Amino acid sequence: MAQTIKAGLVGVTGYTGMELARLMVHHSSMELVRVTSRSEAGKSLAEIYPFLNRLPLGDLVITQPDPADLAAECDVVFLAVPHKTAMEIAATLLEEGVKVVDLSADFRLNDKDTYEQWYATEHTRAGLLSEAVYGLPELYLDQIMGARLIANPGCYPTSSILGLAPALARGIVRSDDIVIDAKSGASGAGRGKSIGTLFCEVHDSFRAYGLPTHRHTPEIEQEISKIANTPITVSFNTHLLPVDRGILSTIYTKLTADLSLDEVHAVYTDYYADKPLVRVMPKGQLPETRFVRGTVFCDIGLVVDPRTGRLVILSAIDNLCRGASGQALMNANLICGLDIDEGVPMAPMMP
Amino acid sequence: MAQTIKAGLVGVTGYTGMELARLMVHHSSMELVRVTSRSEAGKSLAEIYPFLNRLPLGDLVITQPDPADLAAECDVVFLAVPHKTAMEIAATLLEEGVKVVDLSADFRLNDKDTYEQWYATEHTRAGLLSEAVYGLPELYLDQIMGARLIANPGCYPTSSILGLAPALARGIVRSDDIVIDAKSGASGAGRGKSIGTLFCEVHDSFRAYGLPTHRHTPEIEQEISKIANTPITVSFNTHLLPVDRGILSTIYTKLTADLSLDEVHAVYTDYYADKPLVRVMPKGQLPETRFVRGTVFCDIGLVVDPRTGRLVILSAIDNLCRGASGQALMNANLICGLDIDEGVPMAPMMP
Amino acid sequence: MAQTIKAGLVGVTGYTGMELARLMVHHSSMELVRVTSRSEAGKSLAEIYPFLNRLPLGDLVITQPDPADLAAECDVVFLAVPHKTAMEIAATLLEEGVKVVDLSADFRLNDKDTYEQWYATEHTRAGLLSEAVYGLPELYLDQIMGARLIANPGCYPTSSILGLAPALARGIVRSDDIVIDAKSGASGAGRGKSIGTLFCEVHDSFRAYGLPTHRHTPEIEQEISKIANTPITVSFNTHLLPVDRGILSTIYTKLTADLSLDEVHAVYTDYYADKPLVRVMPKGQLPETRFVRGTVFCDIGLVVDPRTGRLVILSAIDNLCRGASGQALMNANLICGLDIDEGVPMAPMMP
Amino acid sequence: MAQTIKAGLVGVTGYTGMELARLMVHHSSMELVRVTSRSEAGKSLAEIYPFLNRLPLGDLVITQPDPADLAAECDVVFLAVPHKTAMEIAATLLEEGVKVVDLSADFRLNDKDTYEQWYATEHTRAGLLSEAVYGLPELYLDQIMGARLIANPGCYPTSSILGLAPALARGIVRSDDIVIDAKSGASGAGRGKSIGTLFCEVHDSFRAYGLPTHRHTPEIEQEISKIANTPITVSFNTHLLPVDRGILSTIYTKLTADLSLDEVHAVYTDYYADKPLVRVMPKGQLPETRFVRGTVFCDIGLVVDPRTGRLVILSAIDNLCRGASGQALMNANLICGLDIDEGVPMAPMMP
Repeated sequence: MAQTIKAGLVGVTGYTGMELARLMVHHSSMELVRVTSRSEAGKSLAEIYPFLNRLPLGDLVITQPDPADLAAECDVVFLAVPHKTAMEIAATLLEEGVKVVDLSADFRLNDKDTYEQWYATEHTRAGLLSEAVYGLPELYLDQIMGARLIANPGCYPTSSILGLAPALARGIVRSDDIVIDAKSGASGAGRGKSIGTLFCEVHDSFRAYGLPTHRHTPEIEQEISKIANTPITVSFNTHLLPVDRGILSTIYTKLTADLSLDEVHAVYTDYYADKPLVRVMPKGQLPETRFVRGTVFCDIGLVVDPRTGRLVILSAIDNLCRGASGQALMNANLICGLDIDEGVPMAPMMP
Repeated sequence: MAQTIKAGLVGVTGYTGMELARLMVHHSSMELVRVTSRSEAGKSLAEIYPFLNRLPLGDLVITQPDPADLAAECDVVFLAVPHKTAMEIAATLLEEGVKVVDLSADFRLNDKDTYEQWYATEHTRAGLLSEAVYGLPELYLDQIMGARLIANPGCYPTSSILGLAPALARGIVRSDDIVIDAKSGASGAGRGKSIGTLFCEVHDSFRAYGLPTHRHTPEIEQEISKIANTPITVSFNTHLLPVDRGILSTIYTKLTADLSLDEVHAVYTDYYADKPLVRVMPKGQLPETRFVRGTVFCDIGLVVDPRTGRLVILSAIDNLCRGASGQALMNANLICGLDIDEGVPMAPMMP
Repeated sequence: MAQTIKAGLVGVTGYTGMELARLMVHHSSMELVRVTSRSEAGKSLAEIYPFLNRLPLGDLVITQPDPADLAAECDVVFLAVPHKTAMEIAATLLEEGVKVVDLSADFRLNDKDTYEQWYATEHTRAGLLSEAVYGLPELYLDQIMGARLIANPGCYPTSSILGLAPALARGIVRSDDIVIDAKSGASGAGRGKSIGTLFCEVHDSFRAYGLPTHRHTPEIEQEISKIANTPITVSFNTHLLPVDRGILSTIYTKLTADLSLDEVHAVYTDYYADKPLVRVMPKGQLPETRFVRGTVFCDIGLVVDPRTGRLVILSAIDNLCRGASGQALMNANLICGLDIDEGVPMAPMMP
Repeated sequence: MAQTIKAGLVGVTGYTGMELARLMVHHSSMELVRVTSRSEAGKSLAEIYPFLNRLPLGDLVITQPDPADLAAECDVVFLAVPHKTAMEIAATLLEEGVKVVDLSADFRLNDKDTYEQWYATEHTRAGLLSEAVYGLPELYLDQIMGARLIANPGCYPTSSILGLAPALARGIVRSDDIVIDAKSGASGAGRGKSIGTLFCEVHDSFRAYGLPTHRHTPEIEQEISKIANTPITVSFNTHLLPVDRGILSTIYTKLTADLSLDEVHAVYTDYYADKPLVRVMPKGQLPETRFVRGTVFCDIGLVVDPRTGRLVILSAIDNLCRGASGQALMNANLICGLDIDEGVPMAPMMP
């Protein structure tokens, strides 16, 4: 019988940390043995997360983040801390010989200058950029399996890239006229104190934000440019939904030829035939964020509009699960030699 | 002192009827004297709408719809019934000499064939199409004031047309590359029994629907083609928000020249300078559906993206108020000689 | 024609300040001429509240709170600041000759010791306690009309006291076995930064809080003891609803005699016969918070349970309107010689 | 290795059926081999539940309910159909030798007359009442393990009985003064077409319903009377929360002696010491419905109020999981010889 993988989590108090704790409750081959937080060290996990009462994980005591200790105890460490903070911890952990799945943006962009321009801060560990593997398994499965450092994709990019990949890879849409209208649940805004994310500021309302320079833009452009093998500039626009979780990206593209829905659908089902965690929906069905709530699925719906010659791609994920901690767990599974889907949830909560 | 205008409402049990009842509580120059419903006739309004208890309007008894009676008692009649039903009632009421504000789609499209194609039913009163005035006061103020029959605009078209009008009228965006990504609250789906609009099917989720042939498409195309003075085909796409009320349309256009946000903003504020019920937001502010909740305002935000050469227009209304009954009341005010804003709410419920 | 009353508002950035701004938009006899905030002084109201764009009130510039200035410009001043802060401002304004409606708890309790025990702070202006009038018009109409200083009731107490008053005044329920199970929308928790009131911590969940010593307890006990003419101790318990606004209190009492629903209902309708802002619902109807949303109504439903000999009273208000700013406006109307219902909304937003 | 248990589900289109489908996706020892629906027979599960796309369960074809077929193929059958319908199917299946877990109310009440009085229909299979075991494992573990027919408890009773059991069993509260104020999410109202459960009728509002004679009353009274060994009449009152899932019952009792919170807490932790699916929260913590969302936990919080001599018990469950299908699965596990917690979720979705 295989030995249990020992995992650490740096930054347990945010929503991605909370989500990873949730996922680990039912994982049978990986165990969380270290969780850290500067503000909550000394408490048990159940004290800050009562939903873990009477579960073994609830008794785990939160520690101060200590790379040496993490390295001594863990096979793999998840970083759920803000960008800039993550890059230093990641570098130290790698030096100590631990595998790292970084949920921040620090290693997602291949180019140091692009990072520094969009994130307005110096990248002090740029030497690791070439080693880091972008953790989108549908694109980089082999590289992930051999990696020490995973740059776990952003939530919006996961949804956008998976939605566009087949169309761009097969050249059925123009690369110079792509609009992404993305909508995300409020957990994407994080768990920091803020008036803008209070219940009464979000509930029963809807708004755009961050236009036109959301930081996930260069990440999307980097990956879809590789797929299309040509530089792409996208119009990427984000909105805040009054839901806890879920991203739906409505992606507007122009078909390069007069393709039917049948033909486009065949391109997509073929592209994702052996990738079971992306679900191209049957023709006529459209994704809903609840269909993927709490799961690692990316659901894709396709609409061909002959009046305008457009292909509208709808791509839904759970921003905390597929868009963050669930995908991080898929990556951790892979770099630790487990099956990609061990312990990852596939049954959404309905309703 | 002016005499009170007497109004009738045909179809009180849906959300637009309910909204009109709400609006009439505080209207000082117009009184609802007849409300009709086939299913609820005989009851008082307060019996079906307890929120009207102890208000004078609550004592009004619902009657069977009877054109002769409506004509005898009312100066103006609102039709809040489904399309096809509305056209016959409207025609009869007009013959009886009553002014009509029709909230259905029956008289919005100038062209009988277009109506019959999109609504898949015969138009039996097409002779009235040329007389009906499209009740968007920012475009047709003079015609509305002299009209007998108002085709009250659809909710999505109100938001889309007002958002696009300045840009198309001044020619600052291309007319052949317009994408409208519209999101609406659940009241837009009506008050009929349906599994798809149950609380547990809508709450905490998000989805697109009706793609790519929502029936409001030809209405939008008709009006913006007139404004641009050229035939326009738009990509119009609708989504269901887990909120009671509110539409936010994110409209993607391509600038015809390299304009700054300052220049675009000046075009918009100039266009709407004397139209106080449209609010072009200050640069940097973006609309939120709650800012217009329960009001007749249309709030417009502008984003210029130099990376893609696009102008992104964000247009927000309350679908039940500006998008239906509130605009109907503005129109009724106008055709009855009152000020456009008498009794129309301008203070949204916050939060 | 009567002159417009000039009003000031100290503390405009919280939800009660926001609500008062909303209410003043449509008030025809009272005008907000001063709004103050330490943190936002210098901005226009529309800058912090875009929902006021293009409305006259939106141009009002926020000032630092200055009692002399307020006194010079205002006939009446609303205090929407935390308890303890309010008492000093109130005292100064009264000295300057301005009428004050205090929305904080500082003058609600008649007894200094009770205040200091429950609020854990010294009452430095206890000399004003005997002058302050508890601003619940259904109980103290005459005193309010002659007052300089109104202690505007708490939200929970408004709902609880109005629900219990007829039963206790007529002695139909025991005074020693009262349980109040109260549920409030999240706006009751205020607009301060806090993790506990983030959207993702409140939405799609439900919880009790503050048990068993919520600070509104002594306020309820003080008033219902006066009504019953005997000291009453209640079990008062509060819960947080995932809604913006609204309080529903379910009040459990024991009937002193074997009364029918008809008899109990008659007691209530008789008691509130000439008080139109309390609505005793018809037998068989129960209140819903949406029926009073945005209004000053208190809706009361009655259930007699012969199996247990209990009278269950359901009392609903909008916590921000009847429970705070709307009632403050009713009081301000009264102390300024206007009708109680001038400018107060009675038509809830439905849905 | 143990053989997989084969299960059937009669009535897959409601929320309890949907929930059971969700649970079975990750169950490793039990497989759903038959699902039936009169209205949807012939479709695959994924056609009506797109969240099952690309999962093995999604390919299962819905059949017409046929007892002979169910008996031939299944070891155990879940009945997720309305009361009255369930009793006949249950009887037939038992005759065919299949074990039955009935989620309806048909076998919960020991007394035929009580059933017929509260459910207003004849009980045609009353001969089975004495054999049916009330499926609350914390009370009836041994009987369940040997049963053929499980009467799966109602959602409200599960929460109420588990909350009251320790206090009544140990006699620390009076049995003649119990008030239960229960609040449930909208999924408890079922998935039938109805205006009252439309999104716009439930969202952002709150109301009581069914007072004072909710049908779960006799079920609660039956079980707590047995525990207390004396007949108990409770005041049971239900409210509708604008959340998908979750019940929080606030239970008001009077202590028989002057006990401290420490003492009461010890009674509860002792009573549930070896029952890990009930979590008595640490002193000072109170349950929230989200802590149990999607899980089989019952969370209990305790408040002692010395001012009133009351013990307030807060008991939270997920109405669809612990309150219906999750508990049904616990029971099915037990009657099939599996561990009670096989395949039952314990990690709630947070947020």
